[in-house]
Amino acid sequence: MGAQRQPKQDRHQEILDAAAQVITDRGLADTRISDIAERAGVSPGLILYYFESKDLLLSEALSFANDQFYLRLSREVRRIRTAKGQLIRLVDLSVPGLLPEYGRLDEWALWIEVWTRALHNEKMARDREMLDKRWRDSIADIIQTGQKTGEFPSGDADELALRIGALIDGLAVQVVMNDSEVTSLRMRQTVLDMAAKEIGFELGPADLELGAKG
Amino acid sequence: MGAQRQPKQDRHQEILDAAAQVITDRGLADTRISDIAERAGVSPGLILYYFESKDLLLSEALSFANDQFYLRLSREVRRIRTAKGQLIRLVDLSVPGLLPEYGRLDEWALWIEVWTRALHNEKMARDREMLDKRWRDSIADIIQTGQKTGEFPSGDADELALRIGALIDGLAVQVVMNDSEVTSLRMRQTVLDMAAKEIGFELGPADLELGAKG
Repeated sequence: MGAQRQPKQDRHQEILDAAAQVITDRGLADTRISDIAERAGVSPGLILYYFESKDLLLSEALSFANDQFYLRLSREVRRIRTAKGQLIRLVDLSVPGLLPEYGRLDEWALWIEVWTRALHNEKMARDREMLDKRWRDSIADIIQTGQKTGEFPSGDADELALRIGALIDGLAVQVVMNDSEVTSLRMRQTVLDMAAKEIGFELGPADLELGAKG
Repeated sequence: MGAQRQPKQDRHQEILDAAAQVITDRGLADTRISDIAERAGVSPGLILYYFESKDLLLSEALSFANDQFYLRLSREVRRIRTAKGQLIRLVDLSVPGLLPEYGRLDEWALWIEVWTRALHNEKMARDREMLDKRWRDSIADIIQTGQKTGEFPSGDADELALRIGALIDGLAVQVVMNDSEVTSLRMRQTVLDMAAKEIGFELGPADLELGAKG
């Protein structure tokens, strides 16, 4: 790995990346600091030097995975002309296992682990709230863009974003656990139908094709 | 506690009740079998005699808390004449912390713990799927009742139940973690608005009063 020659920032990110992978694979309860150290190719001592506890490591690993999600989102959304197309892409990026180019998404497993810890840890509860607000705001931004250009009718963008974001959360839990009735494709269809009805736009057959650009 | 004189069934339920309380208070990761034994007033050996592992105990504790939820639901819904009133009561019973007569509901904390374990445990994933299906079916039953009597327009009751159930799940996670923007009352309003729009019924001011009977 040539870890000794890497700048500090890279090793920090490598540890977070390894933590996200190991926690997703095994679950936080069955993850030891030494497992993450092995995956990252660093010593357990270095991990404890950067992060005080497994909880802190989990919290930062989710932030890190989340940053990657928003990087992908903004890179993709920039290329899409319509707010409807942007919203469809946001939904596609958030459905677990839908887009083969992104493989299995780590974020959902990390979110669920963070929810569990946040029930008993005030600092994690506040971190979760901040990340959830960022999630709602990114949905609201797209809705507001569509409302400003007249593509969508007017409406309370924050309330619409709360509904769409919470529906995505609730369905993603079922999809990520391989529910036999709630598949990736059903989740996509359900979220898009509900978003179209709530925001007030038409969904055509072309919109429902995966990878369609608005 | 006089545990020795109690019939077996009672002790089994007392253990599950104690497990639900301790896991809700401390989280599964920080719960020891001995904590549950102490709360239930039995020996740790007896708990391990009934339940093989902490995971199995969690799974059965959620089933137990869930059974209590459905008992409450059917007892209350039986007294309500309209499907709309029944649906409103179902929503009220599922919003964390809304109804003071039920105190803090244990189910949501247990659900989140089960989600975390189900990511890495096939048996728990199947248990979760079964419980989630029961949840959707109980929503669909009320919708179908309303559709049969003509109170609601026709529609795909299973799909509507999926949307309403998942929205409740996604919002409950935020409420149970004391999100400053997503309160119990906001969750109630959001779910009822969305359900009215999706199912196709009118929500009057009287419907929005807490404890209104349809």
